[in-house]
Amino acid sequence: MVQQLTSSEHLNATFAALADPTRRAILARLASGETSVSELAEPFEMSMPAISKHLKVLQRAGLIERGREAQWRPCRLAVAPLKDASDWLDHYRRFWEEAFDRLEDYLRELKRDAQKKEKKNGRKK
Amino acid sequence: MVQQLTSSEHLNATFAALADPTRRAILARLASGETSVSELAEPFEMSMPAISKHLKVLQRAGLIERGREAQWRPCRLAVAPLKDASDWLDHYRRFWEEAFDRLEDYLRELKRDAQKKEKKNGRKK
Repeated sequence: MVQQLTSSEHLNATFAALADPTRRAILARLASGETSVSELAEPFEMSMPAISKHLKVLQRAGLIERGREAQWRPCRLAVAPLKDASDWLDHYRRFWEEAFDRLEDYLRELKRDAQKKEKKNGRKK
Repeated sequence: MVQQLTSSEHLNATFAALADPTRRAILARLASGETSVSELAEPFEMSMPAISKHLKVLQRAGLIERGREAQWRPCRLAVAPLKDASDWLDHYRRFWEEAFDRLEDYLRELKRDAQKKEKKNGRKK
């Protein structure tokens, strides 16, 4: 049975899936191409059931897809939920951009003050 | 005691904090300005201890700051962790942009085919 999630529930599942370093590392590995579960598990010092549990969380969040091949069911990255998470964060972009602009203004001001001081000291000599 | 977190631990805390609709709604409310906790709690049908728990999670993730005023300690949005989360997601941007480009190509092809068909049918008449 495929469960229909609301967009808020999708975000819950996506952010919860991303809140773990192993799961983020799995996604980073899949970004360079699809792979088998055993290959995926190799770099982690973890039991196969532990890895399977992480894969299930990622799959439930729609972040990975499994191939249909009977023997080798490869894992594949699915990025649509990452785009939705990024779109959500974009609502706050203006805040960090404004903070960065204010910092730039402040640094420019500091520089101008330092130059003025230098000029003044230069005249004194 | 201020706990020093690694950047991976920061991401864990940020994504975990964002995985809840009430906490996302609190951030959305704070985006329009700082406010008291009781004002913040008003639109939610939740007990004060439940709201306080959510605020603690957000505070631990560095997503909100509390004013120092003794009586009124207002809550304020802090966006640096949101920027870090957005930067992490940006590593995957090319995937959804490529997917979108492929979709566009496909739609263009469909349109071209439809026009060809129309032309051909036009000549037959």
